[in-house]
Amino acid sequence: MQKGNDRKLKLVPLGGMGEIGKNITVLEYGNDIMIVDCGMGFPEDEMLGIDIVIPDISYLIKNKDKIRGVVITHGHEDHIGSIPYLLKKLEVPIYGTKLTIGLIEKKLIEHRLDNKCLHVVNHDDKIKLGCFQAHFIRSNHSIPDASCIAITTPVGVVFHTGDFKVDLTPVKGEPIDLHTIAEYGKKGVLLALSESTNIESPGYSLSEGSLSNNFIELFKKAKKRIVVATFASNVHRVQQIIDAAKIFKRKIVISGRSMVNVIDVATNLGYLDLNPDMIVNVNDINKYKDKELVIISTGSQGEEMAALSRMAADEHRKIELRQGDTVIISASPIPGNEKSISQVINLLYEKNIEVIYDKLYDIHVSGHAKQEEHKLMLALLKPKFFIPVHGEARHLKKHAELAEKMGIKNKNIMVIKTGDMVEITRKEMKLGQKIQSGNILVDGLGVGDVGNIVLRDRKHLSEDGLIIAVVTIDRSSGTVLSGPDIISRGFVYVRENEDLMVDSRAAVQAALEKCFANNVREWSAIKSAIKDELSKFIYSEIKRRPMILPIIMEVRNS
Amino acid sequence: MQKGNDRKLKLVPLGGMGEIGKNITVLEYGNDIMIVDCGMGFPEDEMLGIDIVIPDISYLIKNKDKIRGVVITHGHEDHIGSIPYLLKKLEVPIYGTKLTIGLIEKKLIEHRLDNKCLHVVNHDDKIKLGCFQAHFIRSNHSIPDASCIAITTPVGVVFHTGDFKVDLTPVKGEPIDLHTIAEYGKKGVLLALSESTNIESPGYSLSEGSLSNNFIELFKKAKKRIVVATFASNVHRVQQIIDAAKIFKRKIVISGRSMVNVIDVATNLGYLDLNPDMIVNVNDINKYKDKELVIISTGSQGEEMAALSRMAADEHRKIELRQGDTVIISASPIPGNEKSISQVINLLYEKNIEVIYDKLYDIHVSGHAKQEEHKLMLALLKPKFFIPVHGEARHLKKHAELAEKMGIKNKNIMVIKTGDMVEITRKEMKLGQKIQSGNILVDGLGVGDVGNIVLRDRKHLSEDGLIIAVVTIDRSSGTVLSGPDIISRGFVYVRENEDLMVDSRAAVQAALEKCFANNVREWSAIKSAIKDELSKFIYSEIKRRPMILPIIMEVRNS
Repeated sequence: MQKGNDRKLKLVPLGGMGEIGKNITVLEYGNDIMIVDCGMGFPEDEMLGIDIVIPDISYLIKNKDKIRGVVITHGHEDHIGSIPYLLKKLEVPIYGTKLTIGLIEKKLIEHRLDNKCLHVVNHDDKIKLGCFQAHFIRSNHSIPDASCIAITTPVGVVFHTGDFKVDLTPVKGEPIDLHTIAEYGKKGVLLALSESTNIESPGYSLSEGSLSNNFIELFKKAKKRIVVATFASNVHRVQQIIDAAKIFKRKIVISGRSMVNVIDVATNLGYLDLNPDMIVNVNDINKYKDKELVIISTGSQGEEMAALSRMAADEHRKIELRQGDTVIISASPIPGNEKSISQVINLLYEKNIEVIYDKLYDIHVSGHAKQEEHKLMLALLKPKFFIPVHGEARHLKKHAELAEKMGIKNKNIMVIKTGDMVEITRKEMKLGQKIQSGNILVDGLGVGDVGNIVLRDRKHLSEDGLIIAVVTIDRSSGTVLSGPDIISRGFVYVRENEDLMVDSRAAVQAALEKCFANNVREWSAIKSAIKDELSKFIYSEIKRRPMILPIIMEVRNS
Repeated sequence: MQKGNDRKLKLVPLGGMGEIGKNITVLEYGNDIMIVDCGMGFPEDEMLGIDIVIPDISYLIKNKDKIRGVVITHGHEDHIGSIPYLLKKLEVPIYGTKLTIGLIEKKLIEHRLDNKCLHVVNHDDKIKLGCFQAHFIRSNHSIPDASCIAITTPVGVVFHTGDFKVDLTPVKGEPIDLHTIAEYGKKGVLLALSESTNIESPGYSLSEGSLSNNFIELFKKAKKRIVVATFASNVHRVQQIIDAAKIFKRKIVISGRSMVNVIDVATNLGYLDLNPDMIVNVNDINKYKDKELVIISTGSQGEEMAALSRMAADEHRKIELRQGDTVIISASPIPGNEKSISQVINLLYEKNIEVIYDKLYDIHVSGHAKQEEHKLMLALLKPKFFIPVHGEARHLKKHAELAEKMGIKNKNIMVIKTGDMVEITRKEMKLGQKIQSGNILVDGLGVGDVGNIVLRDRKHLSEDGLIIAVVTIDRSSGTVLSGPDIISRGFVYVRENEDLMVDSRAAVQAALEKCFANNVREWSAIKSAIKDELSKFIYSEIKRRPMILPIIMEVRNS
């Protein structure tokens, strides 16, 4: 028989609360743990040099014997991107629909990891994970094969929407399974977890299918090459581009590593209807007339290294864009990317290329539910308890307000943070202890070896540069054998500022002499003196505070 | 009698073309030069550590004897911010309306510059600048006292709109002087230069006056303190906040240096109707009940050091925000600032503060004309030639397209870049030579001492950090007297990576020994060898490329 405390369901988001990305939610009951999603986050501006961010999974490692499996809602990076790092620490089975698992598999190969932990499920499948039962329910999103997960737990049903929209005319496949969702609502949902990305947008998101004609219209007008940049994982968008190309008898060139990868997986698994005869290898691009080609490309977010940015900057090795070409950016900016996209658009305009982008044309729809769809979801589910997920504080707050308007009692709605444990019974939902959580920074091969101090130094270096003052001293006599030398990086043009450098050296020299005169012999005290003196001098001269690094080399003259 | 070439009007934008900000346009005819605006630019993301950007004015310095004066359209930083730097190089008279000159004066005091070059003009005034006559025409913008400038030149009228909107119900003052603009159009405008900021927005910008009721509604609902963050220079917005405060008998606290400055200037010059009794010193804030206060604050763009950001982060020394307070962000994000604003909003929500922002409420209107207003301007002016100004390539292109739709001949429209000289006669407008132009970076007191190499180093340091390998060598014998020592900053946590550091030292040691064995004695060759060896080692271990700085200290053992 279980102890009192164990009769509670525990819910712990290890990411995705109060942030966009890094989605991972842990459900625990007695001796069983199951996990929903295992995504990566994107570095904030102040995380200089960081490649990706993954969740701290110490809690899972500590409880590894309890883990029964991970269910994945869909194949986007913020839901699958941390799986390789999880698998390097833990041996756990992973469940997802076919395309989702296909994309995870590609990722494991890159990390040289075994794929035997991966299990394909179909929509409507129910899988048993200890005391939990997870039911995969068809949903709509900007990637095919997305799922809501209805989790039957000993205390009741927990319904996780995943990322979703309600698309009644999707391009391929079927609309979100409203019947099953309604059925759960009728039988009773204890707790709903629902995504919050577009909660600030009124109305109803447009259907993916609404774009087809717009592509056809734009393709009709294009006189030369067409480039369409979009998210690689938006397979239905890619399908519409291919379909439009077919109408105008244009061949397809695929550009960008992730675009090649996803189209490869999606075609092999039957999610994309693409005749191999339509594909032109990028090396053969010049064998075709401009009017015969559509280039499907990455870089819709203005990413510096992506295909479109390289084309715009004339740095693409294979594809050169020319006056009269048309570039369609079929995406809207993810917050933070506005300036880099704008830069790409400007570079293209400067080449007299026609640029079609979201602000001026209807060539993109969001994959996330807007307010009316959220209302529909809540109306169908009628959950007793509600926790908004996947969003910054502003989104979670607005979603909570919407839920209250939809009739959920204020005391039954919680806005929580990553690392908060929520304890749930049939009757009650309350905050439990705080669980270790946070961001692990990945830089190159290093996982977690860059943290706040290193980032603070990077920021300091990036804003003000560095001055090194180096001197070799005879330990015994305390005389200077060599130096002081002044070396700087990222500070000022040295050649134009010779006086400043000469005077800096003099400042260090003065600091040293003062130390010796006062019989200061401790290296740390001398270093401090150099740092203070030099810092003061530089600030008085030029009002900047470069990082100052005094180095004392010590020689023992025998 | 003038030579043929001199009968042309030359127009050179030294900034503001293909970029937002740094507006400065030069007009030259024969021996006369006049300048419109002298603004600063804002550093791009890649300009790490840079405070502001000013235009390269080498062309003006070379032709300083020709300069008859500078006319300023309005008092925003991107139109006046470079004036102190101009005045440090050139002695020229500056003309502007009262508030504009008041704000410039404040700036000159900060730079300890004399104000005797400043001249106040009124709307409708015409001033003579050599062969030019500049007519200041009343306009509307998000700062009072804005002007269009009609410049009568020997070849015809050049009409510069400045930044404008058509506001028929401004909060104070009068609408843009459409009559005079129409009159110029009727008499004949040779060339129109018109701003392009909002050219991508359809419709008509809302009137500043439309906000008053919204503020009153929000103030009515507020239960505790109200903070309103907006642009300091938006004096009419500030007026509406003050007026709403008056209705609800709340006092005003002014927070943020630029807010204090502008309110000071605007009140003294009669642009702001603010009874001194209404003002509460920030130090006395706790003497008043929460319901008795409105705090008008800077930081509407989420600027790290601004008042609102500090309040949100609990780092404001005087003002503490609490649950139940209301924060109104009366601004929309300038592209690039979306994430920092979002961060401020999130921090406030986490404190359970009510946040009212642009995306959800009508609490901001733009100061820039939208498409319908641009059409009106072009319809009134009916210029022969047209050059869109103040915008990135994408904006200039769209504005050119709009002008063509409005009936201006395609061949009479030019999209040009900063530094392009345009030669204009009564009959013809064509591209002339290229003029030296560009960005001068200001960092602390340094003007132009940071350039591409320094920025490249800052970027490198910011992304990968730095490893220093330092060794002291006996010049004569070639033996190592001290070191090699390895010092790193911004690279990895050293304590957690001791092995890596020890092995790095060994790699340097090995490189040195190889050099000595091969009798390599040139310092530069030894440095190269250290750099190569260490770089290779670090990359193989951890896939990163920190900056590597080998330092050799040389001792001559006598």
